[in-house]
Amino acid sequence: MQTEEKLLIRALQGETLERPPFWLMRQAGRYLPEYRATREHAGNFLDLCYNPDLATEVTLQPIRRFGMDAAILFADILLISDGLGQPLDYREGEGPILEPVRNLAEVSTLRLDNLHTKVAPVYETVGRLAEELPDNVALIGFAGAPWTVATYMVEGRASRDHAIIKQWAYGDPNGFDQLIDLLVTATVEYLGKQVDAGAEAVQLFDTWAGALSETAFQRWCIEPVQQIVTQLRQKHPDLPIIGFPRGVGAGYRTFAKTAGVNGVSLDWTVPLDWSVAELQGEVTLQGNLDPRLLVIGGGVMEAEIQRILQTLDKGPFIFNLGHGIVPETPPEHVGRLSEILRG
Amino acid sequence: MQTEEKLLIRALQGETLERPPFWLMRQAGRYLPEYRATREHAGNFLDLCYNPDLATEVTLQPIRRFGMDAAILFADILLISDGLGQPLDYREGEGPILEPVRNLAEVSTLRLDNLHTKVAPVYETVGRLAEELPDNVALIGFAGAPWTVATYMVEGRASRDHAIIKQWAYGDPNGFDQLIDLLVTATVEYLGKQVDAGAEAVQLFDTWAGALSETAFQRWCIEPVQQIVTQLRQKHPDLPIIGFPRGVGAGYRTFAKTAGVNGVSLDWTVPLDWSVAELQGEVTLQGNLDPRLLVIGGGVMEAEIQRILQTLDKGPFIFNLGHGIVPETPPEHVGRLSEILRG
Repeated sequence: MQTEEKLLIRALQGETLERPPFWLMRQAGRYLPEYRATREHAGNFLDLCYNPDLATEVTLQPIRRFGMDAAILFADILLISDGLGQPLDYREGEGPILEPVRNLAEVSTLRLDNLHTKVAPVYETVGRLAEELPDNVALIGFAGAPWTVATYMVEGRASRDHAIIKQWAYGDPNGFDQLIDLLVTATVEYLGKQVDAGAEAVQLFDTWAGALSETAFQRWCIEPVQQIVTQLRQKHPDLPIIGFPRGVGAGYRTFAKTAGVNGVSLDWTVPLDWSVAELQGEVTLQGNLDPRLLVIGGGVMEAEIQRILQTLDKGPFIFNLGHGIVPETPPEHVGRLSEILRG
Repeated sequence: MQTEEKLLIRALQGETLERPPFWLMRQAGRYLPEYRATREHAGNFLDLCYNPDLATEVTLQPIRRFGMDAAILFADILLISDGLGQPLDYREGEGPILEPVRNLAEVSTLRLDNLHTKVAPVYETVGRLAEELPDNVALIGFAGAPWTVATYMVEGRASRDHAIIKQWAYGDPNGFDQLIDLLVTATVEYLGKQVDAGAEAVQLFDTWAGALSETAFQRWCIEPVQQIVTQLRQKHPDLPIIGFPRGVGAGYRTFAKTAGVNGVSLDWTVPLDWSVAELQGEVTLQGNLDPRLLVIGGGVMEAEIQRILQTLDKGPFIFNLGHGIVPETPPEHVGRLSEILRG
């Protein structure tokens, strides 16, 4: 099947489909026993991301079981900072640990030159997936959006209050822009190569966009995404791009109108009627089941799935969660979700 | 000065004032050296909340220094669960620790009977403040909104993902309603006594409202607030009430239109033009400076203060932060803020 015939791509090109396509953020992950089994063959989490055999395998696992309409490359949003030369470690139960970058001198130690070499296994994984995926399944590449990647680079780990990065960004906006600019360039390079290798759409995850006030959201979330979209489209004019500025509330409106993306992924707090009225005329909507309902399953989950479908499927729409699948999700609940969505 | 002549009350009654009144969430707190000094005389944090001498003193401290237009009672949103008989402990650096309540049998151990006796020192503090506050300063009482208080009661501590409470609430909504109903009743009792003792307005803090999906936000945030407002107004028909459903994004619209409150406090992510267009016709707006800007100070802070003033002060408006002052805030930045706002 040609890319443009796949349901996910048609939805992203603005088509309202009889059956909305679906995929689930973090659909390859710890909730699946086969993932945990594969994971044991890798050393740490990064080894898994950089091993094309194993990364291809875990990307395919949920597709085999549940028949999603899209597979998303198995990787991590911090491979890009790793590729720029900022060492990254994952410790069990702690999440990512980085040697922080907190000023321009430290930014100047980062290098674009080695990015492609370092993350080459990711491109190889994309290439293999493009060959191995079932004919009707679209392949999504991804990157973290610059602001969100920068939060980890500057804070050195996941942060609750983003105190350190805000101190820098709000206090020295022009200096901080240089880190964001570097990440814009690196992201265009990184996603461009994913597309060259076979990705048919890309998603930009801006998990911490909701930490910013309005002016800062404009400067460090919307504008960098605009730049990435514009630059990616120079080489790939028809590339469908999804943005996921999590937690930005009414800011979704400005994002949908101005970021230049084809699709916008909604977190689970977004009121659906509002998103239809304010966003769906501009972009394809993607979302937004609370992942906790997928843990609970049963009638409560099914009622919410129906509510989402019945509200959003009158326009361009991709069913997804409002954030990633959590590890304690019973796989059979994902199976039931798939049955409902595939009809 | 009569209550109805005070700037804060006039703003909450819908008046657009030449100089918007201001106060700051957590204005009495660790950023003030005099607070830290008083804190040393109390045993733990709860002892401070339950000591009318010391709680009155720390409530007055920021008013003396900065001349805010309102003082907010110094207390904690979990005094209400403590008053219902759920033991509460504060450990340094860990926040609140509670013996969790996770099912109806555990809810049935909670008792309304002893609430007023247990929290009587809080009412005494309110009474003293009503006498001691400068003539033009309004006195705000407060409580946590039921959902937010319930998150601590069920999780047993601050939670990042609210997994346990959602498991209960989403999985057994009718059972969970009984905890919320109990909290509605307790909150009406608790705030009613604060008003009897001299509070001239009240604020309901729903810090974790943004954890919920749309349907759950309606059921466990908006509806309980509606009930509290209706019941409080039976005895206190003119009481100005402020709601603060933090992080609910476009959900602020439904909240402002239907919760029945006079004022809505905006977190710092809310786009200001949107809030003017969608909310300020219904309610008085309060907010929304990012507290991190108060740490940074200088031109960056001042520019954001001006942006907020110039956008919101054409309608009923109270200047505040988008969340509480953080401990590392230099007091002189609060002083500068006060100078700007008092003109």
